[in-house]
Amino acid sequence: MKSFTGMTSWFSDMQLKEEIRAIVRAAKEASRFLSDVSSKVKDDALKRMAEGLTKNGSFLKEENQKDIQSARADRLSPALIDRLTLTDSRIAAVADGLMEVAKLPDPVGEVTRMWRRPNGLLVGRMRIPLGVIGIIYEARPNVTADAAGLCIKSGNAVVLRGGSEAIRSNMAIARILQKALKDAGIPEAAIGIITTTDRKAIAEMLTLEDDIDLIIPRGGESLIRMVAEKSRIPVIKHYKGVCHIFVDESADLAMARTICYNAKVQRPAVCNAMETLLVHEKVSKAFLPEMAEEYRKAGVELRGCERTRKVLPDAKRATEEDWYAEYLDLILAVRVVKDIDEAIEHIARYGSMHTEAIVTKDYAHAQRFLKKVNSSTVLVNASTRFSDGFELGLGAEIGISTTKVHAFGPMGLEELTTQKFIVYGDGQIRS
Amino acid sequence: MKSFTGMTSWFSDMQLKEEIRAIVRAAKEASRFLSDVSSKVKDDALKRMAEGLTKNGSFLKEENQKDIQSARADRLSPALIDRLTLTDSRIAAVADGLMEVAKLPDPVGEVTRMWRRPNGLLVGRMRIPLGVIGIIYEARPNVTADAAGLCIKSGNAVVLRGGSEAIRSNMAIARILQKALKDAGIPEAAIGIITTTDRKAIAEMLTLEDDIDLIIPRGGESLIRMVAEKSRIPVIKHYKGVCHIFVDESADLAMARTICYNAKVQRPAVCNAMETLLVHEKVSKAFLPEMAEEYRKAGVELRGCERTRKVLPDAKRATEEDWYAEYLDLILAVRVVKDIDEAIEHIARYGSMHTEAIVTKDYAHAQRFLKKVNSSTVLVNASTRFSDGFELGLGAEIGISTTKVHAFGPMGLEELTTQKFIVYGDGQIRS
Repeated sequence: MKSFTGMTSWFSDMQLKEEIRAIVRAAKEASRFLSDVSSKVKDDALKRMAEGLTKNGSFLKEENQKDIQSARADRLSPALIDRLTLTDSRIAAVADGLMEVAKLPDPVGEVTRMWRRPNGLLVGRMRIPLGVIGIIYEARPNVTADAAGLCIKSGNAVVLRGGSEAIRSNMAIARILQKALKDAGIPEAAIGIITTTDRKAIAEMLTLEDDIDLIIPRGGESLIRMVAEKSRIPVIKHYKGVCHIFVDESADLAMARTICYNAKVQRPAVCNAMETLLVHEKVSKAFLPEMAEEYRKAGVELRGCERTRKVLPDAKRATEEDWYAEYLDLILAVRVVKDIDEAIEHIARYGSMHTEAIVTKDYAHAQRFLKKVNSSTVLVNASTRFSDGFELGLGAEIGISTTKVHAFGPMGLEELTTQKFIVYGDGQIRS
Repeated sequence: MKSFTGMTSWFSDMQLKEEIRAIVRAAKEASRFLSDVSSKVKDDALKRMAEGLTKNGSFLKEENQKDIQSARADRLSPALIDRLTLTDSRIAAVADGLMEVAKLPDPVGEVTRMWRRPNGLLVGRMRIPLGVIGIIYEARPNVTADAAGLCIKSGNAVVLRGGSEAIRSNMAIARILQKALKDAGIPEAAIGIITTTDRKAIAEMLTLEDDIDLIIPRGGESLIRMVAEKSRIPVIKHYKGVCHIFVDESADLAMARTICYNAKVQRPAVCNAMETLLVHEKVSKAFLPEMAEEYRKAGVELRGCERTRKVLPDAKRATEEDWYAEYLDLILAVRVVKDIDEAIEHIARYGSMHTEAIVTKDYAHAQRFLKKVNSSTVLVNASTRFSDGFELGLGAEIGISTTKVHAFGPMGLEELTTQKFIVYGDGQIRS
């Protein structure tokens, strides 16, 4: 016989499951409506969402303050509290983002190709929404609005499950967005929010493969691994970014310095920052000392291979672990390689398939690097920091996939759609 | 303390895991080589594979006979034994298939789009192989060669795990294909075959997310559900095909009869055969009796709704389950609907998102059906039987996806690739 506590917990588990299933089922129903809504109505909803956030700034900040107070009471780190905090300018940025998404072309209904078969059938592929997207994320409350906006624009319903630290902020944002949907004539359930902070909610969500079409986890590696392991629903994973720049023998060294400085220093804590610098041995003496001086001024710690340390005796000794490291900090691993092939080999062995760049004047080397390096973004003579949905021209970004299925690299609105086959016939049958 | 038997089983489990990991790791290594192999070399390998199967026909049939004898001893069904059997003509068909795949354009390296950013960056998307594809399948030994051919052509390594009933046939085919790869200068490990018939092999395979990029199960629904549930690797699922044809008020009724006959009778056991016929009430009397007479001659059993049975009193009464049924047999559910919207509603409620068709002369209805029905293939005035990679012009088919992530509908060579971003710069940095 179950103890009383056991029964209570069993009942509350059942209640939790039912609550989540109801939210997801309602989102599924709303997704059918949304898949056929005109661009005009969707864009109107996005504008109302932006206005709603701007108009309710004081309410949002009040709710956000409650999260911040709990976070302080729980002694969360200042970095985390900073990510959690909503200010007027952050709210304005989120609202601007929604207005920008409203201006983007609607991917739904686009016929990407069309061809005629010998029997006269005209066959095409038309973009349609995926259906229901589940977003599982950590502290940043802005994700609530960013992700919801991209999903609505691409005709998808969304089920949001944010971190418990931001629960009041997320709920406040979601209520404002739902009101905007309703005013635009779209069912509120198209933005579902899971308000329980119990971790079991995530596990339950991940079993609902008939109603959720895709899960996008946004957060640290442990969250992503947990989600990938438990999910029966396809997951877009964003693991780490161990990005490389290879400075080739023929590189314009001034350009190489500008690019390498930008890739490491401009924003070291993000996934498209450079983590390992590879330098052709023939230019190591000409390139590294001046580069190291620039890095020194910026406070970058260098960890070099033996050949690097011959040119830069002050650099720390790099260990095997350094080649795998995603520092997300002002630290850089440096390796001198004998040629482009050794650089490509190093990237294949230690890289994370995220973003790599070559700096070169050699046409053949540029083409070879682009062809042979199978990372999600490969650049010639440009900073790795461009590996970003906005910078590459997708108009928006819902995440960066480091696995190859469905999407690889920065994901925009198109990556929230799939394509069906449409066929125009005039009576064809199969023989 | 473990019993002796316990220890033996523990050791053999470890051995099995090590064996599978070794095959998969070798395939991963080979996939790096294959991703950069020229079309010429891959096509040469495919031709050698075809020749090898043709030349070794007697050996293949001998090995196949051993499988057939075991199958008979195990009293497997005649249908299963038929699927298992290799004949000269079946071997020739598989070899022809490989020759056809050799003639298809190579998807790898194709730049599908390219655009310039305001800062001068030229950004494009280039097709690359997925890496390592795991195929888990049941009785048919032809899958061994078909799947391997498509994977090699698209630059992927493959790990094959066929059913235990066909183990000797599959091993014989794989050895011939591996020899062909070697002769063409491609590592044999690019076609890995798991020869243990222990089901634990599948479970082990499904955990190797770092080395296998995609799993394609081919077989019955229970196999697919088991794989989807256990896999940490993305899975392309092919669930059932409950395909509909809607005969609209304005349909050319002679065309409708030809199409509906073809879709049900030509090959009823396949997933793109029609399972439910929806008829506009205004043409039910003009259309159904003559259609029913044709079906009667072909031995098709009809199960109708009440309105159908008013026109066809001999039809059985359809139950709620019939609307969900994938008969794969000469049985057809028939429902009279009041208009196109009721037809679309029925499909959304009971369909499997596989393939649906409308027969109509009405331009607006044709466009509306194509837009509103979000199944993987939607046809106007053509048989559902065209939902097939070859028939739609993909040149080949590795499976049909009924889920939306990565691929939706028939999958050809392109669906075995992903796209990376390539970026041509001239010194750009981010500000």
